[in-house]
Amino acid sequence: MEEKARVETLKQKGPLGAEELRRMDAYWRAANYLSVGQIYLLDNPLLREPLKPEHVKPRLLGHWGTTPGLNFIYVHLNRLIRARDLNMIYVTGPGHGGPALVAQTWLEGSYSELYPHVTLDADGMQRLFKQFSFPGGVPSHTAAETPGSINEGGELGYSLAHAYGAAFDNPDLVVACVVGDGEAETGPLATAWHSNKFLNPARDGAVLPILHLNGYKIANPTVLARIPRAELESLFVGYGYKPHFVEGAEPERMHQQMAATLDRIFDEIREIQQRARREPLGERPRWPMLILVSPKGWTGPKELEGKKLEDHWRSHQVPFGEVRTKPEHLKVLEQWMKSYRPEELFDEHGAPRPELSALAPQANRRMGANPHANGGLLLKDLYLPDFRDYAVEVPRPGGVLGEATRTLGVYLRDVMKANAPSRNFRVVGPDETASNRLGALFEVTGRAWVAERLPTDEANLAPDGRVLEILSEHTCQGWLEGYLITGRHGLFSCYEAFIHIVDSMFNQHAKWLKVTREIPWRRPIASLNYLLTSHVWRQDHNGFSHQDPGFLDVVMNKKAEVVRVYLPPDANTLLYVADQCLRSRNFVNVIVAGKQEQAQWLTMDQAIKHCTPGIGIWAWASNDADGEPDVVLACAGDVPTLETLAAVDLIRQHLPSLKVRVINVVDLMTLQPKEEHPHGLSDREFDGLFTTDKPIIFAFHGYPWLIHRLTYRRTNHKNLHVRGYKEEGTTTTPFDMVVRNDLDRYHLVADVIDRVPGLGYRAAHVKQLLRDKLIEHQEYIKEYGEDTPEVRDWKWPY
Amino acid sequence: MEEKARVETLKQKGPLGAEELRRMDAYWRAANYLSVGQIYLLDNPLLREPLKPEHVKPRLLGHWGTTPGLNFIYVHLNRLIRARDLNMIYVTGPGHGGPALVAQTWLEGSYSELYPHVTLDADGMQRLFKQFSFPGGVPSHTAAETPGSINEGGELGYSLAHAYGAAFDNPDLVVACVVGDGEAETGPLATAWHSNKFLNPARDGAVLPILHLNGYKIANPTVLARIPRAELESLFVGYGYKPHFVEGAEPERMHQQMAATLDRIFDEIREIQQRARREPLGERPRWPMLILVSPKGWTGPKELEGKKLEDHWRSHQVPFGEVRTKPEHLKVLEQWMKSYRPEELFDEHGAPRPELSALAPQANRRMGANPHANGGLLLKDLYLPDFRDYAVEVPRPGGVLGEATRTLGVYLRDVMKANAPSRNFRVVGPDETASNRLGALFEVTGRAWVAERLPTDEANLAPDGRVLEILSEHTCQGWLEGYLITGRHGLFSCYEAFIHIVDSMFNQHAKWLKVTREIPWRRPIASLNYLLTSHVWRQDHNGFSHQDPGFLDVVMNKKAEVVRVYLPPDANTLLYVADQCLRSRNFVNVIVAGKQEQAQWLTMDQAIKHCTPGIGIWAWASNDADGEPDVVLACAGDVPTLETLAAVDLIRQHLPSLKVRVINVVDLMTLQPKEEHPHGLSDREFDGLFTTDKPIIFAFHGYPWLIHRLTYRRTNHKNLHVRGYKEEGTTTTPFDMVVRNDLDRYHLVADVIDRVPGLGYRAAHVKQLLRDKLIEHQEYIKEYGEDTPEVRDWKWPY
Repeated sequence: MEEKARVETLKQKGPLGAEELRRMDAYWRAANYLSVGQIYLLDNPLLREPLKPEHVKPRLLGHWGTTPGLNFIYVHLNRLIRARDLNMIYVTGPGHGGPALVAQTWLEGSYSELYPHVTLDADGMQRLFKQFSFPGGVPSHTAAETPGSINEGGELGYSLAHAYGAAFDNPDLVVACVVGDGEAETGPLATAWHSNKFLNPARDGAVLPILHLNGYKIANPTVLARIPRAELESLFVGYGYKPHFVEGAEPERMHQQMAATLDRIFDEIREIQQRARREPLGERPRWPMLILVSPKGWTGPKELEGKKLEDHWRSHQVPFGEVRTKPEHLKVLEQWMKSYRPEELFDEHGAPRPELSALAPQANRRMGANPHANGGLLLKDLYLPDFRDYAVEVPRPGGVLGEATRTLGVYLRDVMKANAPSRNFRVVGPDETASNRLGALFEVTGRAWVAERLPTDEANLAPDGRVLEILSEHTCQGWLEGYLITGRHGLFSCYEAFIHIVDSMFNQHAKWLKVTREIPWRRPIASLNYLLTSHVWRQDHNGFSHQDPGFLDVVMNKKAEVVRVYLPPDANTLLYVADQCLRSRNFVNVIVAGKQEQAQWLTMDQAIKHCTPGIGIWAWASNDADGEPDVVLACAGDVPTLETLAAVDLIRQHLPSLKVRVINVVDLMTLQPKEEHPHGLSDREFDGLFTTDKPIIFAFHGYPWLIHRLTYRRTNHKNLHVRGYKEEGTTTTPFDMVVRNDLDRYHLVADVIDRVPGLGYRAAHVKQLLRDKLIEHQEYIKEYGEDTPEVRDWKWPY
Repeated sequence: MEEKARVETLKQKGPLGAEELRRMDAYWRAANYLSVGQIYLLDNPLLREPLKPEHVKPRLLGHWGTTPGLNFIYVHLNRLIRARDLNMIYVTGPGHGGPALVAQTWLEGSYSELYPHVTLDADGMQRLFKQFSFPGGVPSHTAAETPGSINEGGELGYSLAHAYGAAFDNPDLVVACVVGDGEAETGPLATAWHSNKFLNPARDGAVLPILHLNGYKIANPTVLARIPRAELESLFVGYGYKPHFVEGAEPERMHQQMAATLDRIFDEIREIQQRARREPLGERPRWPMLILVSPKGWTGPKELEGKKLEDHWRSHQVPFGEVRTKPEHLKVLEQWMKSYRPEELFDEHGAPRPELSALAPQANRRMGANPHANGGLLLKDLYLPDFRDYAVEVPRPGGVLGEATRTLGVYLRDVMKANAPSRNFRVVGPDETASNRLGALFEVTGRAWVAERLPTDEANLAPDGRVLEILSEHTCQGWLEGYLITGRHGLFSCYEAFIHIVDSMFNQHAKWLKVTREIPWRRPIASLNYLLTSHVWRQDHNGFSHQDPGFLDVVMNKKAEVVRVYLPPDANTLLYVADQCLRSRNFVNVIVAGKQEQAQWLTMDQAIKHCTPGIGIWAWASNDADGEPDVVLACAGDVPTLETLAAVDLIRQHLPSLKVRVINVVDLMTLQPKEEHPHGLSDREFDGLFTTDKPIIFAFHGYPWLIHRLTYRRTNHKNLHVRGYKEEGTTTTPFDMVVRNDLDRYHLVADVIDRVPGLGYRAAHVKQLLRDKLIEHQEYIKEYGEDTPEVRDWKWPY
């Protein structure tokens, strides 16, 4: 109630002097003018001649509704940046309000610095207008092309997680994040509000969430705009914030309200940060947030042909069309644009008048030029310990057992430690870091936690923790994306099946990377590294819902220049791959590796030799030394490798004269043609490995058709037979999982027998033996609930 | 504060008489005993002999932490069901507490009715224990196998949306939905709380959300357990609920508190419903919800070897292991199980004592036997108008323009109308029903909306609306799944790119369907129908972030018996396909169809003839009548079909002697081998269509490799050349989109020329012409931002 009374007072007078208010309003009008111009005009940008149909774009595209609000906020944040010398970036959830960001960055000059042909004059303004949503021009949404942007404005839901990701470990940064009330309905956004329990006010920067309540989506009101204000306030108090409201439509009063409220908010932020940096963290701070209630399509035409436009969903996109064909529409457009009084805003050359330009922050303080929004500029290489120092000793292939991810955990611990001073490395995951056996990390850091702690908690729950865990894959991914795009490094470890939860976020990030590669001023950023563990073959205990290796198929749809997939079969190969991934730039790297105890195959030297090309013959497992093999057994993935080697053992025992070549694939992209992927083998190399005419039995970690998709152009594709996950599973034993999908050693040997001609009388005998083994397996697990000792205890015996 | 005082009083005395309390507590102990038994025991189920290592499972799997809480709630809901004759189902978000549901349904008898071998005696109990998380047995999570379940307990996040889906149009149903505080961190769950703005208390049933705050996840505290209670209360007030707290650990007091609170809650529910059914809906009701604060692993061992177990994350799964090897662990297990005093709970045969059984509801009122949780039992066929009545008149191929989804909208309107009395059909979508041109629906129904309405709103925003729109694909999908599994029908319309947001939910639903097909008592339910529109080729205006046809790849990974994919090329084929989908059962049907105005190809008779096999030669577009063609042009999808026909026109003009066969594919599954999918063509049929040796140029809607994956075993695969989306796009024109991906008419003709031998001197000439056309296109759109009139106005001229 106090708040409301205060706001009432401020409507009358406020912190802005008359001149400052006039100029800020002019700046806002300039941005709005430029926004409308982008949506509508091809030419005559300053309206210095009467508007004619041919000045208007034949095809009208763009979103007006959110744009004036975004402009309003930007102008006010500029004031704060100047007044307090703030280091601030602007994340726009309603990214379809792209015209606002383009307009603002042009006004402040950062746009023309990055795109010199879009000059700060009438010609440049005309180019600015024409290029918007125009072929060969710029997208209608905030995108990688937009200066100052770290958040694609296409798919909604991720702005707030991105904002927090950007703020982590950037103590001096303020991330202003506008959340549209449409976006606020998405699940990822609805849970991202809880990120405030993971932000340490001493070590991290500040996030200022601005809920932009303009009431409407494409064709509906928004939920949050149609609940009582008290309920809305309660919601954000419940999320742990201190909400401040700015509400209205009358520009002058809104400017005063906004300026006063932002002053107060930034005082609160400063107070929280100063206290936290002065004394140990006590109670979790209640960070301020802003709820801006302004009409959708604010300052646009109130209505047209009897239909409400301003403050209605009809102004969501282009508020009215048919401008070339209906003279009255042309008139309305001209009046609308002239209502901003462009002659007051731009000088005779079309440049913003100096009194306006003076309102923009300077140099890197401009939000379109802040280096945090072009993180590659700030990126420092990680200090990486020598991964060879973490090698598992492998006296002979299969001679020791090891847990690949536990070994990796020790390496990651030292990566974390080595880079602690730089504060630029984070590990994220949905409550699974320990479960995924990366627990060694907790020897050197904790789990970030700013909420309440109890004496019974493990010591590794700490405000200073560098491991981020929340039971939301969306939030994990969003945080990490925000962290990477602003120039830092990280790793996301996740159960393999549930990484599908972020398929669409992965898609958007891969698209972002693809586009940034084509933008000269966007500097390379660290790759997004996934460690997928607790994978399909070792989710026998959790059952069918936890069994899905299909993320690889989603990944492989993206541009070859952006994606990498690795399936290291043991600990030493995993170490090599992880080191590569952490060094790489602008990729999405997917590593699939198990966490269970399993035989180790390669010494570190062998691992390096094998992983460098990413594919190779395992001579020690093959017996084709003096010529062509009779059959090729290929494998990719730790469990398929194990089953393949067990199959080789059976073949040596029962079909000793058969010449077998074993190929292991670590880098899945090697299978693709060279023309399709930079890692792809040439046909000659491929034929050299896989032969041109021998049967190939390929044991694959994922869905089998992925291998066919990668290899269908290869010479010997017709002889390729792939086993993999065929969507069979339940709660059962590890070995039963492979049996149900015909990927087990017995089926693999049977596949060999079926495909190699001339095996003679022994073949039938061996097949009977395999059948007996399978029946024995079925009966044993039915009785004991465990795999047979023969299977469990099998070791490579050579 | 009042509430707290009230609760304090109730701790002392409460609504339960001493005898009722004693028996309810015994029932709870019985369920807990049976839950622990499932996790640990192979044999000696009643502990009538001293527990020995061989009685214990060699491999311990399962989740104890949430289980006693789930049991506690179930016992209390049983009381309510009996006292008020409620029609209730139980949705368990913490579905990994599977042992609880199995225990409860066994106790109430519903389990043994569905699984007669698991009898209500000592033998049955032993089977119940052994089968749990045992190969060939039942999953460790709540799953399709679990009586009374509509929510898979694997991937977290969807319980509450499922619950609301179940409640829609079931005015007498109460859906009790337990939300774990872990699950509550997920995005989908965090936004699903807002479903209360879409539930009409007059027409729909009630949802009782029960937030089970037991404090911990796998290895961390939960966020909601570590914010002040006042903040938590505020959060749920903000979500629009009236939260009630039950908190404690001492059983007697907890029973009294719980009984008193539930009495009050159900009074409130009754009051809301009665008022809403008596008078027009005024203000949106504040539905009650319950927050149950109880220790994780409640009633389990307090600690072991100095480590806290109860009320700690260590009790999340199996609280302690090594029971076969450590005698002291065996002892702790025995003491723990005996602490429930099994001798008081089960009679000499091992059956629950009659005084306990008397506490369970009767017949279909038992939550394990409620038919709503086996929706196929209640499923009624939709009344479907004759889709032929909605046909677009097509005087000759390409002779008229039409908008496929708008035509479908008229049909759906009449489906909606015809089934209005049955209240069993819903359309869901993320604010896109009108944008996707299904607006005709609003002639007969509105958008469901129980939040505030304004005079300026369209009339179609209504509490009675049957179209559900929220800007959350997760919520749309969750609602629809809940609606379908409880025996109703529906359709989800979505932008194609953003359906990836629910990849993982689709996965889980497809898995659910696969498993239900193998469970005799699960009756078939209506298929989950997706209409993907605003698709990749017509998102030129929204840009790269909106361009992704990869959902098809995700779908095709699931079991062939469950998934169907259709790409109707025009309105009449879309009508046919939609009718088929709405009639089908137990599938996921994906229909991809554009919303833009486009040439119509087939009359309704032709459409039926074409869609029945789902693939066929378009003779009117082909000129190979008297023999084998020189080339096959195949197409799937509306835009690829258009480009293919335009290519055929160019070929007829410039290479008139070339014999072209045009094949259109509506049902993508026909391409797969017959052995892989029931819709698959035999090799003979396939070869008859695609020839065994002629070049095939296949223009495909999605990523091209999907076609290779489906056809790599076909005879003529080596001559198959597929064009499709190769991840190129931006904000541009429709035709430029196909050009950027080499899918346009000019590239297709060039592909033909490159692959058909012996075209002679004309070929070079035509290729030059095509190159000129492409340059002309580039220049035109650069200048005007639109496609050339030649492209825009092209019509099939024959």
